[in-house]
Amino acid sequence: MAPTSLARLSIVAAPLYREELGAHLRDLRHRRGERLADTASRAGVSTQYLSEIERGRKDPSSEIVEAVSVALGTTVGDVAIAVGHRLRDLARAPGTSLRARAFALAA
Amino acid sequence: MAPTSLARLSIVAAPLYREELGAHLRDLRHRRGERLADTASRAGVSTQYLSEIERGRKDPSSEIVEAVSVALGTTVGDVAIAVGHRLRDLARAPGTSLRARAFALAA
Repeated sequence: MAPTSLARLSIVAAPLYREELGAHLRDLRHRRGERLADTASRAGVSTQYLSEIERGRKDPSSEIVEAVSVALGTTVGDVAIAVGHRLRDLARAPGTSLRARAFALAA
Repeated sequence: MAPTSLARLSIVAAPLYREELGAHLRDLRHRRGERLADTASRAGVSTQYLSEIERGRKDPSSEIVEAVSVALGTTVGDVAIAVGHRLRDLARAPGTSLRARAFALAA
């Protein structure tokens, strides 16, 4: 494996906070059976912006995370704990999800 | 108590993520007995910027939180879990720390 590939794997092995935050918020929305527009409207953000947050493209401000969390019936504290556990689980299971992520990026 | 005071108390009762993130990172740095410049240098950020993060003035990007967390010998996941518990504790104990915060703001 070339050094560049190793570097890439290292980056993949450390998912960013915004990526797992977005995935968690999307999971919460799906569990409620809501469309992006439903949640975005209650949170006071645009559908497009919420979509970008869910895909981990944006680091939302604390105010936006608060608004979206409340719109999803939860709190910023509970969201942070859940996202932290997602990140911790990913860091501890390099043989499963992280490898899958690396393959997905390499494809 | 006047309505404005109630509104202020309401704001104080919902601390923002960046405020508790900053307080937690500052606690971690203090436990290591480091100066702002020490940690900032290893994280690759300016001392002034780390100071603003610690005071909850800035919502740092996921990359910056990652760099500061690593510089403090921890991980983004563990930081998020700790910050989430700080926020949850504050929300559950309005008679103690939140009142102290309200008094501090009113002073």
